[in-house]
Amino acid sequence: MAQTPPRTPTARGSYAVGDARRQKILDTAVAHFAQWGFHASSLARIARDCGITQGGLLHHFRGKEDLLLSVLARSERRDAERLFGEPAASVAAYYATLVALAEDNTRRPGLVRMFHTLVGEAADPDHPAHAYFAQRYERVLGHTRAVLEAGVAAGELRPDTDCEGAGREVLAVMDGLQIQWVLTPTALDMPQRLRGFLDRQLRGISAAA
Amino acid sequence: MAQTPPRTPTARGSYAVGDARRQKILDTAVAHFAQWGFHASSLARIARDCGITQGGLLHHFRGKEDLLLSVLARSERRDAERLFGEPAASVAAYYATLVALAEDNTRRPGLVRMFHTLVGEAADPDHPAHAYFAQRYERVLGHTRAVLEAGVAAGELRPDTDCEGAGREVLAVMDGLQIQWVLTPTALDMPQRLRGFLDRQLRGISAAA
Repeated sequence: MAQTPPRTPTARGSYAVGDARRQKILDTAVAHFAQWGFHASSLARIARDCGITQGGLLHHFRGKEDLLLSVLARSERRDAERLFGEPAASVAAYYATLVALAEDNTRRPGLVRMFHTLVGEAADPDHPAHAYFAQRYERVLGHTRAVLEAGVAAGELRPDTDCEGAGREVLAVMDGLQIQWVLTPTALDMPQRLRGFLDRQLRGISAAA
Repeated sequence: MAQTPPRTPTARGSYAVGDARRQKILDTAVAHFAQWGFHASSLARIARDCGITQGGLLHHFRGKEDLLLSVLARSERRDAERLFGEPAASVAAYYATLVALAEDNTRRPGLVRMFHTLVGEAADPDHPAHAYFAQRYERVLGHTRAVLEAGVAAGELRPDTDCEGAGREVLAVMDGLQIQWVLTPTALDMPQRLRGFLDRQLRGISAAA
């Protein structure tokens, strides 16, 4: 440790300040995109809510589209680590990870709301996040299908399991429960409802049944 | 027929023209709300796409909020007739109606896209459509739960069926499959996937199983 050449406090300090500011802009952008969507969000208003000028914001992001894609990339990195970080030991273990993700999501309603505001807008092929969302579904579905197929190969699931169909259902239930939850958060225990669905689905396709 | 006093062609014509224009404004608004959301949609641009002035549009609707709620009310009336028009003879019959609705939806992608753009925005309690969406989910869930409870009472479903949970799952799968479909319409046969899910769910809770 003593061998490490010390960085000057100034340099370290300004790096940390810059990174903190960048994270604050991203957090503020999540709230704006959630409430207004991409089109009605304004860089000037996001900057103002961060206590900086629009020029200051443009020091960190090239524009509104870059800010949008940076917000999505940061959120994607967090999810990807949880979902794809290490190969799932079994379908049951993978489903437990999905429930843990739903539990995380109850603690970040802003991100969940942003997701649903943007995914609707992004059905438009000209929307700047269209490719991101289309590819995200392809990737998550592909991964889920692969986990299910591995479950069939390992004898955990019945050989006739419709892995594509079961995978699409899992994604659909996660999204659909989120919509019910963002509209009326007190109306349902989202992770518990998801666990109930996954348990029933798994019993239906389990080779042990 | 001969007894009926004839209305003047002028009066009938102008009523028909007025109604046709109103429907055209509503159709155009669906496309705008789908692409831009409520906040970024503009009455001036909607009027222009209808080939009328903003003043002409305001002859039919009091403002953007009135136009939004009118679009949602028209779409709701169509669905409500299908869903709640006559009491479902059984859970199986009700589920067949839901699949028919999903088939209809594949022929009106604009409405489905609008729904998902708006439902995300409307998580905001201050959004003009927040109450509409919150009440819509409460009503559709309440109806679905009642159909399932009737199925339990009639001996169609197992006595221990979790009607609230099963109802929420059905709504969630419908919404979630729609999201996958609006992003990549060619990637899935939405009504067939929904039918597959409903059949499996019903087998799991059927008293005959």
